[in-house]
Amino acid sequence: MASKDKKNRLPARLPRGFIDREAGDIRATEEMLAAIKRVYERYGFEPVETPFFEYTEALGKFLPDQDRPNEGVFSLQDDDEAWLSLRYDLTAPLARYVAENYDRLPKPYRSYRAGWVFRNEKPGPGRFRQFMQFDADTVGAPSVAADAEICMMAADVMEALGVARGDYVIKVNNRKVLDGVMEAIGLGGEENAGRRLTVLRAIDKLDRLGVEGVRELLGEGREDESGDFTKGAGLSKEGAEAVLSLFDLIGSNERSGTSNAPVIEKLKASTFAETAVYAEGVGELAEIASLVEAAGYATDRIEIDPSIVRGLEYYTGPVFEAQLTFEVPNEKGEKVVFGSVGGGGRYDGLVGRFRGEDVPSTGFSIGVSRLAAALKNLGKLGSENETGPVVVTVMDKSRLADYQAITTELRVGLNADLAPSERPVPVEMYLGGSGMKAQLKYADRRNAPCAIIAGSDEFDSGRLQVKDLLEGKRQASAIASHEEYKEERPGQFDVARTNLVEEVKALLKRQRGEA
Amino acid sequence: MASKDKKNRLPARLPRGFIDREAGDIRATEEMLAAIKRVYERYGFEPVETPFFEYTEALGKFLPDQDRPNEGVFSLQDDDEAWLSLRYDLTAPLARYVAENYDRLPKPYRSYRAGWVFRNEKPGPGRFRQFMQFDADTVGAPSVAADAEICMMAADVMEALGVARGDYVIKVNNRKVLDGVMEAIGLGGEENAGRRLTVLRAIDKLDRLGVEGVRELLGEGREDESGDFTKGAGLSKEGAEAVLSLFDLIGSNERSGTSNAPVIEKLKASTFAETAVYAEGVGELAEIASLVEAAGYATDRIEIDPSIVRGLEYYTGPVFEAQLTFEVPNEKGEKVVFGSVGGGGRYDGLVGRFRGEDVPSTGFSIGVSRLAAALKNLGKLGSENETGPVVVTVMDKSRLADYQAITTELRVGLNADLAPSERPVPVEMYLGGSGMKAQLKYADRRNAPCAIIAGSDEFDSGRLQVKDLLEGKRQASAIASHEEYKEERPGQFDVARTNLVEEVKALLKRQRGEA
Repeated sequence: MASKDKKNRLPARLPRGFIDREAGDIRATEEMLAAIKRVYERYGFEPVETPFFEYTEALGKFLPDQDRPNEGVFSLQDDDEAWLSLRYDLTAPLARYVAENYDRLPKPYRSYRAGWVFRNEKPGPGRFRQFMQFDADTVGAPSVAADAEICMMAADVMEALGVARGDYVIKVNNRKVLDGVMEAIGLGGEENAGRRLTVLRAIDKLDRLGVEGVRELLGEGREDESGDFTKGAGLSKEGAEAVLSLFDLIGSNERSGTSNAPVIEKLKASTFAETAVYAEGVGELAEIASLVEAAGYATDRIEIDPSIVRGLEYYTGPVFEAQLTFEVPNEKGEKVVFGSVGGGGRYDGLVGRFRGEDVPSTGFSIGVSRLAAALKNLGKLGSENETGPVVVTVMDKSRLADYQAITTELRVGLNADLAPSERPVPVEMYLGGSGMKAQLKYADRRNAPCAIIAGSDEFDSGRLQVKDLLEGKRQASAIASHEEYKEERPGQFDVARTNLVEEVKALLKRQRGEA
Repeated sequence: MASKDKKNRLPARLPRGFIDREAGDIRATEEMLAAIKRVYERYGFEPVETPFFEYTEALGKFLPDQDRPNEGVFSLQDDDEAWLSLRYDLTAPLARYVAENYDRLPKPYRSYRAGWVFRNEKPGPGRFRQFMQFDADTVGAPSVAADAEICMMAADVMEALGVARGDYVIKVNNRKVLDGVMEAIGLGGEENAGRRLTVLRAIDKLDRLGVEGVRELLGEGREDESGDFTKGAGLSKEGAEAVLSLFDLIGSNERSGTSNAPVIEKLKASTFAETAVYAEGVGELAEIASLVEAAGYATDRIEIDPSIVRGLEYYTGPVFEAQLTFEVPNEKGEKVVFGSVGGGGRYDGLVGRFRGEDVPSTGFSIGVSRLAAALKNLGKLGSENETGPVVVTVMDKSRLADYQAITTELRVGLNADLAPSERPVPVEMYLGGSGMKAQLKYADRRNAPCAIIAGSDEFDSGRLQVKDLLEGKRQASAIASHEEYKEERPGQFDVARTNLVEEVKALLKRQRGEA
């Protein structure tokens, strides 16, 4: 099957925006997912998972990427001509699931799921077309107590992952507040829905573009460094300044303070407060603040921030964003705040697309890869230098069955009394075609604690050689000449075949400093 | 956003062949994956994962479903016109990964991964278009010792999952044996590749169609019950009988015996043994048998069976199949052997498609969902009746902050000294809009161990009601009248607010029978 013609061989490469994941990354992510899961379970959330495909119309198109093919969604046509899409988030499929199983689910229905999602975005550094989200959602709870709970849970997740209080904050705003501001400047009504979205997406870029950049996007538009022009919302100068006045409220609370009362007072005192939807939004924020503060979550964990938007179109009420507040170097080596690692909000209309009536729902989604990158940066994620396998080397291929018997004996023996939480001790027989030197090099590369060495003489005499590779490395660095090294065989000792398991067990204990 | 017009609402449904997974299923699968992983790690295999998309040409088309759109693969075109496909197994992507990273990987390279794969098959009962596989592969090991190791590992997996010895068997054959037979009947050479594949796929249907069905498929073809005609391989009567003679060797070993020697002797004694590739194949099987028997794996765990084929086109040497040998009822209520839950084999040419030279490789793939169904059948998988959340009910909405404070106190307090292997105790505040009766019904439905009940009086007096829902159910069944029930409030007692965490802790202990 292999093309023997090297010129005609296939290129071994991945499509842009997709990556492979190796052992260190996989183990670290698993550890992280387990910790998040434990927090969600403490809040009574249960796992539920949907498949990767949905009918395209069931997912809807709520992504901000409107200039991409299929608006950023991977889609294909089924046998029967119906369009299917890969999920671009975990919220739209959950809405379909809840609608499909509405009557038999307990309500309020709390659920969680981790899963891969797909976006046909323009790939870039740190921007992938497949990435993992970890979501928690509460469906059927109209009270903003459900939103408050989600925010507290998000804070607990950060601390369960080792992010210190003060290094993160859960920011909260309300789309109703933003809607009220837009209504006040004449952007109300169905006919302005598109422009309202443009305004929201402009505000959402505050972190990246600063106040001046947002001002341009609220007005005629903005030309970026590469010369690309983004059309703006076309607001009047007064309209733009009214929107920008929201930013003046940022930082109204003391970061070291305990209460969100100052920012809520300012929101209430604003001229927008005459707009009903704005007042309703502020009232909900006040209730969220009161609930989280009653549970002991002060502004160092959960803070009201009127500049938070979240990019997805389907939010209808409170919106949240988990931000890491410590600084890291960016691609250019400049120190920047790490920023958002997750977000969410209330989406009362999403289940309703299927049921014909709104179903109150709220949820939160963690960007798993981005958060993993942050934790690595903090030194809070996975030690990659795990002990490798015990390697049984092969000196005499005609006695392969003997090596196999030793390997299995060690594998069974070393793992016999293992607790479920203990990592198994891996044991391998060397399977390649190379000589002893290459085999020991392989063992070294695998970070093997020891190697077993035997030839015909050893099998016949019933004694085998065990080479302690850590001790060997230590001693070798102290031995001057190559001749001396060969003579000394550092770290190597012989054991009775019948005692092999016990001797290796003792060696591993010594290496762990337990004996 | 919700369509208020109930007639125009979207249907809440999944495309055919895709399913949702709920808590019991997810938890059971996780438990199973963890057990499999521990076995793979004991053998020195390390995790590596590839993304869901590959270039279509990189995956190749090796599925048996040649009459389906794109030969059973989900494909779509990228921005730059290149075709991308969702992986249909985990082997083809691994081959691409190894080829791409060849020089920096240790060799032999052992790796494992669990992942979802996609096949655009005609969905049917138990046949899904998205399903999970759990693979282990060794790349760069030319010796069949690598194949022997994979077979032993597959046997260990079955036992780690609680399948008793005798309830499963790992069957082993060699494509070279089958190739030798076909060469002997005149089907050698590049020009007969298609017909050879038809013969292999006919043999592969022995379990489903019996000897007579296979005989028809080797000859002119076969009409099934629905009247569909499948074209056969067009072998002569002699050719077909020569192929079918392989089936005479099945069962040559005693199931209770310890050695594969009898079947190997018969294979060696066959007239086909004059064909070089056949002889080479039998020699490899003999070596595998010798290695597994040296490690103590007798025919009750690993057995040579000349009828095993495996459907994928890319196998070049030994092939394996994990079979469950106990009987279960099928859709018609007839008792049938459960059958295959996984398989694999040697695929020396797959990495070579990218490198222009063969790279010796072998692997094994577990059908996770199918194996999970089998384990459920054996009663070896997950207890779904886990204890639910402690529910803090809400009687007076004006005091929501007080309920929230109690909830958080319980959540923190009950989970304070938890070991990493212990399941967290979930605690919820009721988030719905209903009255007390509905709230207790909700708690019951969630399998809650207890509910906390308090109104203004309780908050003011500093005492709360705790309702033991298990004890309540027990007592209630012994109480005759509704009036008596209301009077007695079975299982309900009051506690000091300051003592709440300790009292609930004690109650949970009592329920577990620990006090």
